[in-house]
Amino acid sequence: MSATNITLGQYMLDCLKREGLTEVFGIPGDYNFTLLDTLEEYEGLEFITGRNELNAGYAADSYARIKGLSALITTFGVGEMSACNAIAGAYSESVPIIHIVGAPKSQAQQDHQLMHHSLLDGNYDVFRQAYEPITAYNAVVTPENAMIEIPQAIHIAKTTKKPVYLVVALDHVLEPITTHIELSFQISTHSNSLQAAIKHAEQLVQSSNNGVLLSDSPVLRYQLQMPVQQVVENLNIPAASMMMGKSGFDERHPNYIGMYGGTFGSEEVRSTIENADFVIAAGLIWSDLNTANFTAELDFQKVINIQPDHVKIGESVYPNILAKDMLEALARLDWRSEAEISVTEFPYDTEQLLAADKDQPLQAGNYYPRFQQLLAANDIVIAETGTFTYGISQLQLPEGATYIGQAGWQSIGYATPAAFGACIAAPKRRVLLFTGDGSLQLTVQEISSMLEQGCKPIIFVLNNKGYTIEKYLNVKVDIDKQVYNDIPRWHYTKLIEAFGGDAYTMQVHTNQQLDQAIQEAEQQQSQKLCLIEMMIEDPMDAPKYLRKTREFLQKQEQQQ
Amino acid sequence: MSATNITLGQYMLDCLKREGLTEVFGIPGDYNFTLLDTLEEYEGLEFITGRNELNAGYAADSYARIKGLSALITTFGVGEMSACNAIAGAYSESVPIIHIVGAPKSQAQQDHQLMHHSLLDGNYDVFRQAYEPITAYNAVVTPENAMIEIPQAIHIAKTTKKPVYLVVALDHVLEPITTHIELSFQISTHSNSLQAAIKHAEQLVQSSNNGVLLSDSPVLRYQLQMPVQQVVENLNIPAASMMMGKSGFDERHPNYIGMYGGTFGSEEVRSTIENADFVIAAGLIWSDLNTANFTAELDFQKVINIQPDHVKIGESVYPNILAKDMLEALARLDWRSEAEISVTEFPYDTEQLLAADKDQPLQAGNYYPRFQQLLAANDIVIAETGTFTYGISQLQLPEGATYIGQAGWQSIGYATPAAFGACIAAPKRRVLLFTGDGSLQLTVQEISSMLEQGCKPIIFVLNNKGYTIEKYLNVKVDIDKQVYNDIPRWHYTKLIEAFGGDAYTMQVHTNQQLDQAIQEAEQQQSQKLCLIEMMIEDPMDAPKYLRKTREFLQKQEQQQ
Repeated sequence: MSATNITLGQYMLDCLKREGLTEVFGIPGDYNFTLLDTLEEYEGLEFITGRNELNAGYAADSYARIKGLSALITTFGVGEMSACNAIAGAYSESVPIIHIVGAPKSQAQQDHQLMHHSLLDGNYDVFRQAYEPITAYNAVVTPENAMIEIPQAIHIAKTTKKPVYLVVALDHVLEPITTHIELSFQISTHSNSLQAAIKHAEQLVQSSNNGVLLSDSPVLRYQLQMPVQQVVENLNIPAASMMMGKSGFDERHPNYIGMYGGTFGSEEVRSTIENADFVIAAGLIWSDLNTANFTAELDFQKVINIQPDHVKIGESVYPNILAKDMLEALARLDWRSEAEISVTEFPYDTEQLLAADKDQPLQAGNYYPRFQQLLAANDIVIAETGTFTYGISQLQLPEGATYIGQAGWQSIGYATPAAFGACIAAPKRRVLLFTGDGSLQLTVQEISSMLEQGCKPIIFVLNNKGYTIEKYLNVKVDIDKQVYNDIPRWHYTKLIEAFGGDAYTMQVHTNQQLDQAIQEAEQQQSQKLCLIEMMIEDPMDAPKYLRKTREFLQKQEQQQ
Repeated sequence: MSATNITLGQYMLDCLKREGLTEVFGIPGDYNFTLLDTLEEYEGLEFITGRNELNAGYAADSYARIKGLSALITTFGVGEMSACNAIAGAYSESVPIIHIVGAPKSQAQQDHQLMHHSLLDGNYDVFRQAYEPITAYNAVVTPENAMIEIPQAIHIAKTTKKPVYLVVALDHVLEPITTHIELSFQISTHSNSLQAAIKHAEQLVQSSNNGVLLSDSPVLRYQLQMPVQQVVENLNIPAASMMMGKSGFDERHPNYIGMYGGTFGSEEVRSTIENADFVIAAGLIWSDLNTANFTAELDFQKVINIQPDHVKIGESVYPNILAKDMLEALARLDWRSEAEISVTEFPYDTEQLLAADKDQPLQAGNYYPRFQQLLAANDIVIAETGTFTYGISQLQLPEGATYIGQAGWQSIGYATPAAFGACIAAPKRRVLLFTGDGSLQLTVQEISSMLEQGCKPIIFVLNNKGYTIEKYLNVKVDIDKQVYNDIPRWHYTKLIEAFGGDAYTMQVHTNQQLDQAIQEAEQQQSQKLCLIEMMIEDPMDAPKYLRKTREFLQKQEQQQ
């Protein structure tokens, strides 16, 4: 890339474009005008505005999950401080976002002038400081350091899969880069460490009769799908996914047995995993929801735990190993199970359930099978934190499907802007958004952004009269008493008109109505956004996985 | 207050109630259930939910401006990170909010378990760190330190008028306080410092023929209205307010001459201030918008600059002086102007303007006089950052009115949740919200909260087809090119139905229609929320103050 006479702003956009980005998310503000003006003139990158910065950040998160990286432009202070949740969430869930902040003029900063959007104390470093704990890297970009800091930040984002933060003064954006230097970054596996890890793994595997593979979130982020599948096929072992790793392993693959959800999920899967002689864990994240409140029980002496930059087996840590290299080495092991992979029953794959009474009010037991039937190859399935997290995650995904949810960070409101981001990232794929009434209220204006941009997701709004998930999780107090978990009752289908858009909308109460609405949406979806509001009579109706979670919490509470 | 057997949660609420709070804002989340359950059982404090944490934070900000202090409860990680903008804004604008965060169980934190809503790295201190730069104090509250940390945090919030941050583990909330200690805090003026400051001020005043008083934001926050008025009356000098200080000085007082807005505001006011022999500045904030882009020009040798905890005259700083004490001492000076205070013309107080063509499309020149006419005693007037900041701030407020806006932080979207907070803080006062289409889209769901809580503000939505303010401020690029400053076109009056509420709504295009809608709203306002959508034909129509701002920025740009 030639950097002669190139401005800082142009160089920054060149760097983003080189990474394959075609869109940049953000919200205008007077300190990022020079960035946006540069972007408006720039070929190959389009600026996509959300309705506020948190939502734009969520959209960028989802975009990065699909395209591998994303960028978000906000303004100083007010803009960036509104996006903290999205960036912290991206950190928690390992999603690389380049967050670029436009700041007041460099001279005003140097003079400690009291400019709007600052704390009015003359300190212009304060928001960068606030971002330090929630990003993997941060820098104040200048014409002098641009060719070091920008590539470095992008490199760190790509290798750690964490968000990074860059702030640049309004005037600097338009100035030519003054220091020209071409950095190159490379990371590679230490071969001694890899050999030792493989030796250790081989001892474990060779002494085993059976093994399993667990696929978790890093498989998605580091695009390890192929090497993981190779391991499974060459060793002929069953594969399960963790909740955070859902869609990383092809759920139609003959070796796939389902999601491992401790004692809340499938008993068959639990028993297969926990009784295996060895477990190859591709990127295991041992968090509460991912392990079904730590009811998952693994003997870690048997686990070959492959993390993005190291491997752990028993108590031994082997540093500086890239996961791909370890997986490829494991796939070459001279060991193969001869046992047949037993065909697994998925919770919502039976025709029987579809035969339920057509006029029956909507219930989890009946609408999840309908969602299962709706799914098609290459769908992007987005499940909001809430009751849907517990049900949609149990569906068996079709080939090529992408599942997006925040099973770690779990910020309610994420899913609707995430659907917007997914529509922008993959305009040719069908996006299915499953959200709840409580969550939708937090970030509802992103439906307007989708309408504005011509996005055509099918949106299911579960209207169950409040924060049902919260009622489920608070086992200390009677459900009737938690009035703080009630929310205003909206008419969700009427939002479209208020937002000045055109959409197919339908409010449904029964199985039959849902069937009809789904059928209609499947036809209309090529033309317009579809919104199906599901009216749930019993606010405490929930999928089995969530009911088991509550039973567990109740027991735990009684034991205290 | 007896603390025997009292739980940490109860004690915390006792402390808030003792400060005169009757409501606490927030959003439920599973880590704050114990706080909310305690609150639900607690007499005298009601929990008010916003539709998301940023909005609840904004509402708390506005509540604190009216009641002197407020509290906000969020959940760990996802909740608190969504509220950063509101808290940083409260810091910038000097508004004391007690931000209380419910965190995971203490044992889970100690064990570095990977719990949801964390960064999944076992670090539970990270969000407190992110809050450090944007709060005046922060603490992890435990049963051992509660009686130190909670009163200390509240004391700091009250004396600095800045937000503070307290985080408490879910289980600790229900535990009895174990260490009992009664702290007492007192701050007072150092009399030597005060004497020296007064001596210096007296020299300046006694050698002067005339003087003026400038009233700024600290007058509102530290409730200095009476001592300031005493100074003005005893010295018989004209008083002007800064934009951030609007409504701190009674605008119907015979000595009030208007707002000082450098070369953008009234020329008469500017000349009176800048030609005075001395200026008593009650809490002057020398920021860009407050000084009309630094076009305000004061000779600081002549300024008695009274800050909340010190006084500065010329180059001399007198520390440790409470503003009230300095003002009371100044009011006792033996000096009095004999000059008559000239009657000032306010920009929008002429009957003439109301006589404009009734069928004329809405224009700033005609609708501001209508707003002027609408204002009544004790109104709470809330102006959104945007074109309304520049026009509404020029209205002459009636007696007892409170003006709320963010002339420093200027976060668009603030005003609508702020109106909600104002309605909760002062249920018997009329709340007038002036917001723009661009801003409203960021935080629109708070209209739902107002409907839910039975709030009855009159809301004016200026529908001028985009971020007009941003188009005004970006003078580098043609207005037609800034497509990023366009927004989706909503039907704002239809939001009410979507939100399931009942309201008086009207869309108006002409002067006459606005007159009729205002008349109708004045009647309906005792029964329901009123929303008047003002359709502006020319998106670049703006009040004079904003047009002057743009002219100034254009000149500045040309000189570069």
